Amino acid sequence: MYLSKLMAVKKTLEIIYNVKRTCEKEKIALDGANMRVLAEDIQVLNDVPPFDRAAMDGYAVIAEDTRSSSESKPTFLEVVDDIGAGYISKYVLDKGEAVKIATGAQMPQGSNSVVMEEFTEDLQGKIKITNSVDTHENVALTGEDLIKGETILKEGQILGPHHLAIIASSGYDQIKVFIKPKIGVIITGNELIEPSEQLKPGKIINSNKYALKALIEDSLANPSIIHSDDDLDMLMNIFEDFTARYDGFITTGGTAIGKGDLIIDVINELGEVLVHGVAIKPGKPFGFGIINEKPIFMLSGYPVAAAVQFDMFVRNYILKMQNITKKFDLIKCIAGSHIYSNKGKCNIIRAKLDKGIVNPIRTKAGINKSIVLSNCYIILDEDIIEVNEGENCNVLEYRTLKIC
Amino acid sequence: MYLSKLMAVKKTLEIIYNVKRTCEKEKIALDGANMRVLAEDIQVLNDVPPFDRAAMDGYAVIAEDTRSSSESKPTFLEVVDDIGAGYISKYVLDKGEAVKIATGAQMPQGSNSVVMEEFTEDLQGKIKITNSVDTHENVALTGEDLIKGETILKEGQILGPHHLAIIASSGYDQIKVFIKPKIGVIITGNELIEPSEQLKPGKIINSNKYALKALIEDSLANPSIIHSDDDLDMLMNIFEDFTARYDGFITTGGTAIGKGDLIIDVINELGEVLVHGVAIKPGKPFGFGIINEKPIFMLSGYPVAAAVQFDMFVRNYILKMQNITKKFDLIKCIAGSHIYSNKGKCNIIRAKLDKGIVNPIRTKAGINKSIVLSNCYIILDEDIIEVNEGENCNVLEYRTLKIC
Repeated sequence: MYLSKLMAVKKTLEIIYNVKRTCEKEKIALDGANMRVLAEDIQVLNDVPPFDRAAMDGYAVIAEDTRSSSESKPTFLEVVDDIGAGYISKYVLDKGEAVKIATGAQMPQGSNSVVMEEFTEDLQGKIKITNSVDTHENVALTGEDLIKGETILKEGQILGPHHLAIIASSGYDQIKVFIKPKIGVIITGNELIEPSEQLKPGKIINSNKYALKALIEDSLANPSIIHSDDDLDMLMNIFEDFTARYDGFITTGGTAIGKGDLIIDVINELGEVLVHGVAIKPGKPFGFGIINEKPIFMLSGYPVAAAVQFDMFVRNYILKMQNITKKFDLIKCIAGSHIYSNKGKCNIIRAKLDKGIVNPIRTKAGINKSIVLSNCYIILDEDIIEVNEGENCNVLEYRTLKIC
Repeated sequence: MYLSKLMAVKKTLEIIYNVKRTCEKEKIALDGANMRVLAEDIQVLNDVPPFDRAAMDGYAVIAEDTRSSSESKPTFLEVVDDIGAGYISKYVLDKGEAVKIATGAQMPQGSNSVVMEEFTEDLQGKIKITNSVDTHENVALTGEDLIKGETILKEGQILGPHHLAIIASSGYDQIKVFIKPKIGVIITGNELIEPSEQLKPGKIINSNKYALKALIEDSLANPSIIHSDDDLDMLMNIFEDFTARYDGFITTGGTAIGKGDLIIDVINELGEVLVHGVAIKPGKPFGFGIINEKPIFMLSGYPVAAAVQFDMFVRNYILKMQNITKKFDLIKCIAGSHIYSNKGKCNIIRAKLDKGIVNPIRTKAGINKSIVLSNCYIILDEDIIEVNEGENCNVLEYRTLKIC
């Protein structure tokens, strides 16, 4: 009797993304910026390398001096200096002269190439050269890696090891990143207790708490988790406190459809419920609302449903709060067996993908271990009733959901 | 003249993996275990759920009572109790009776199924039921998710959000994980300075430090970085200190081939150099050695070469120190243009893969930004001279190197 009111997934996503939240920026030390999100464009402060430098150990020479050099007709040059990396030769090289040079050292004035050490023979004060080099051979030229003023990375970049190296080379040891969104999680359910060997009658272990904390961490945000009794006053107090302190919220439990339920009541009281009930399986009792313009994602108490709801509706929004746009990366795979679907709902079926063939993991909704036994979802849109063995279907691999 | 002495990549990997190092275990709180490596098998302490529970809001009934129930021929049952999740009914259900029950609540004795609320009508003290339910319908049965004693996760598992949830459900709030390996990094090079707008003559910015710290973090290990002058005594002191404190080391710079070089000298003095010079391009001056049975990876000062050496030789070893076995996941792709290779060396070519077509990024070895502009390596074995446009070649995507 309430099925007709379920909202389509597409419409649900439209409503969610219509609530805009972007985070503030902060300046942090570059060496703590792995997996942070860049909040500025990076412009190169100086040419890299900042001078012509030796790319090999050997002798800095004037290329023209070696032009006709060979094993049978070697060239002899006078060694006028010896410089290691980080040091400067005061010599200005003249025809017939060479400076012993280490990889990375600045090329002496007058020189334009490096003869590798293994093509030379040290004759005490002189060297014998048995090959010829071209102009700029074995030399890293000024600005060949990065040019002063060049924009090398853009705002929104998720920073990995090599981005940090490039930013350092560009001249920065501090950068602006987006402040990690603070996500408050409110777990409801009087039946939930902490893990322990001694169970109490009627109680079950609160496992959502652990999954959600880690899911939020993996979404590059900071979680804070609280467990509330199914009590209206307690929940009202928690929400008022959380609204002041966090950028967004997730709740679990208390969103049953077709009757009044606790979380829905609280949010209707303090703010506005924009979505309640989505044409998705599992995960139908999903809700979305706002309090003081802050988004609230209302997930099921069931871990499998909550996982699907997080993957479909929450993760990419938390990323968007940090200016990361991530889309679902659906691929076409072959059904390894017949798949039934509930028409009128988007069916999100835990499955195992192996070499292009995908097989549903057939379990009841309460089988939480199915999440760790599967590696993808088969996603069947509202209008699909079944997929025959051998036919194509849309698959979303879990690994593509991860941002790190 | 020294080329014949370069060691093949395969032999190099054999020597490296012959040096065994496994880490100690530690017990930590489950809610801090995201992205840690499990160091024990997890056995379920109690059935999950620990009792038959309602999977829907509705009425716990005896299925047989509803057998012939329909819209035209409803069943009427007496409501004898009302229980929320986390509470227990003291009633033992008899024929003709029902208990109002919330999702997650323990099924009252005598009942065996749940009629969903929407198929009932509340008649104050009685309910009218318009459908029939099967035995166990809308009931989550004892142990249907996890069975007491079952091994649900194995040592070596990298823990993600849903693993943590399953471990919590299994009854644990603390678990044994492998202690993160402590990796000491010694950066050499008198020419290296910290990032800053004001450059000093002859100096360049130390970018390897930033990349290596983050690469080690991404390998789930703890980095400690020091910058040493190219000075034998200073290096000897650092190595002796590091040997006592860290599980393994990485050095950069000072490994030139065909002559004595600083790092090689130090390690020969304090321990043993097992590899020096590998038939790989870039990255030829790679070295590997041991001091007090602890592994030392000697990388080039050049960022691109150091990145390739880390990817080929270091990351998977650091993971192995935590009992994670990771292999390179090579895929066959089509060359988008002609690719030249140096015969006799394993060529690791930075490239861009797009829709199955791979194109080399053609730059000199010193172009560090090529790492962030590329998304994969083309890997050409020692015996390959060239790959023609349209032919297949082996590709290693950067994203498959990451563990998280």
